[in-house]
Amino acid sequence: MNGRVRGSLVIVGGHEEKEKDAERSILEEIAARSRRRKGNLVVVTVASQLPEEMAADYRAVFRDLGVRDLDVVDIRSRDDACDDVTVEKIRNASVVFFTGGDQLRITSQVGDSPTFQCLNEIYRRGATIAGTSAGAAAMSETMLIAGAGDQSTEISALGMAPGLGFISGVVVDSHFAERGRFGRLLGAVAQNPKNIGLGIDEDTAIVVEQDDRFRVLGSGAVYVVDGTGVSYSSLSERRAEGVLSIFDVKVHVLGDGDSYDLTHRRPVLTDERVEAAS
Amino acid sequence: MNGRVRGSLVIVGGHEEKEKDAERSILEEIAARSRRRKGNLVVVTVASQLPEEMAADYRAVFRDLGVRDLDVVDIRSRDDACDDVTVEKIRNASVVFFTGGDQLRITSQVGDSPTFQCLNEIYRRGATIAGTSAGAAAMSETMLIAGAGDQSTEISALGMAPGLGFISGVVVDSHFAERGRFGRLLGAVAQNPKNIGLGIDEDTAIVVEQDDRFRVLGSGAVYVVDGTGVSYSSLSERRAEGVLSIFDVKVHVLGDGDSYDLTHRRPVLTDERVEAAS
Repeated sequence: MNGRVRGSLVIVGGHEEKEKDAERSILEEIAARSRRRKGNLVVVTVASQLPEEMAADYRAVFRDLGVRDLDVVDIRSRDDACDDVTVEKIRNASVVFFTGGDQLRITSQVGDSPTFQCLNEIYRRGATIAGTSAGAAAMSETMLIAGAGDQSTEISALGMAPGLGFISGVVVDSHFAERGRFGRLLGAVAQNPKNIGLGIDEDTAIVVEQDDRFRVLGSGAVYVVDGTGVSYSSLSERRAEGVLSIFDVKVHVLGDGDSYDLTHRRPVLTDERVEAAS
Repeated sequence: MNGRVRGSLVIVGGHEEKEKDAERSILEEIAARSRRRKGNLVVVTVASQLPEEMAADYRAVFRDLGVRDLDVVDIRSRDDACDDVTVEKIRNASVVFFTGGDQLRITSQVGDSPTFQCLNEIYRRGATIAGTSAGAAAMSETMLIAGAGDQSTEISALGMAPGLGFISGVVVDSHFAERGRFGRLLGAVAQNPKNIGLGIDEDTAIVVEQDDRFRVLGSGAVYVVDGTGVSYSSLSERRAEGVLSIFDVKVHVLGDGDSYDLTHRRPVLTDERVEAAS
């Protein structure tokens, strides 16, 4: 396999609409993936400080969306992540959904554990891994963990950490337009332009398939920040503070229905768009 | 004259540091321009709801910076803008400084008045026109007046209005990183990519000279959004609502000391930068 994605990923920018009849519902996309396949939809609350409330909320929403085989994995420690019962629940999953909270909780508790090995195994066999907010940030090999979006001077000093690694070559940021995070995503891309920056708005998701393309779903936008063509960057350890000067960054904004080819780093016009433009 | 700028402009992103000993002080740059030339530094408070407080503040700051020939123009109506005394004050100015407030107040009260004609006259003769926040937005031929930065769906529906027109081919937004305004500046550029989007952070300014270059000054960054190479834009009157899809926007981030060539749409590396990079 030469793609960077092995199963399917649904990466959500946070605050996805939970009303049953919402148009273009992201949770309906996730529910449908579970209904179509044998196995459970497993909600993993490890990121959250309020795992029980979070589990109850998603249980109710996914039930309403017709998901009958539903399970919750409540990991609060490395021990939980090594527990056979937990691993067995993941093994029986067709779709795993990571809730929001704190992405470092996800990686520090689950990273390299038997639960993680099992997640990787089902993912390789074609399961869908989904995550919202912190659960979205944790998907990539390198994840953003801190950094103020509203101060250009802090762009050079943002925090990165190793993520779960279900997708490589990208850095994901959530709540994107809502929290004005363009600057910090730019900073993440500046650290190493091999990573494409993906800034996902609230109630918006990307669905990544094995062909290394993703499709946008939901009411907001996805901002793609591509540093391949950068002609100058002032970033260096010596200049960790102060404003980052960076020239020739490429940006695309995609809405519901738009696609992007991660291999060739190109937005893909759908037939509908081509028609509307002509 | 083939340039788009006739005198000099100092366009400030708001909240400029007012301490006398601030490093890289923007107000010191403005004060120095006034000290170097015959004529007054005239503070114009038309944008503000609190013109008297605003005038008192800037009087104190500029006095501290050694400006002796200081005057204030307090325009509250079209009548004020047509008043001979007001016009005479402008005629005697070497530097005019527009305070923050509401940019539509500036253009609706001053636009096309004898005060405006006189501003244009001294500007053509080489005076410096400076403005902060609303005073910055009003500088260009087309100015941004409204639009939420934090909702991608409102990008297509932002408000533009005719500005004072001291500089053409650009749209200026202030408080840029601080208020997460990348989306709305992108929307402004999308309306007509002939305009380069200039997003100026707080305590940051661009100094535009007759050679059609600007230099960045201050503690934050200036974001340049260039739509020349846009390969697809979904913007149309029919699609005024919803997410704007736009592909292949170029972005540069510039810090203190960096320059940009508006004619050739290129950042200019200073010798210092070239040295540091080699």
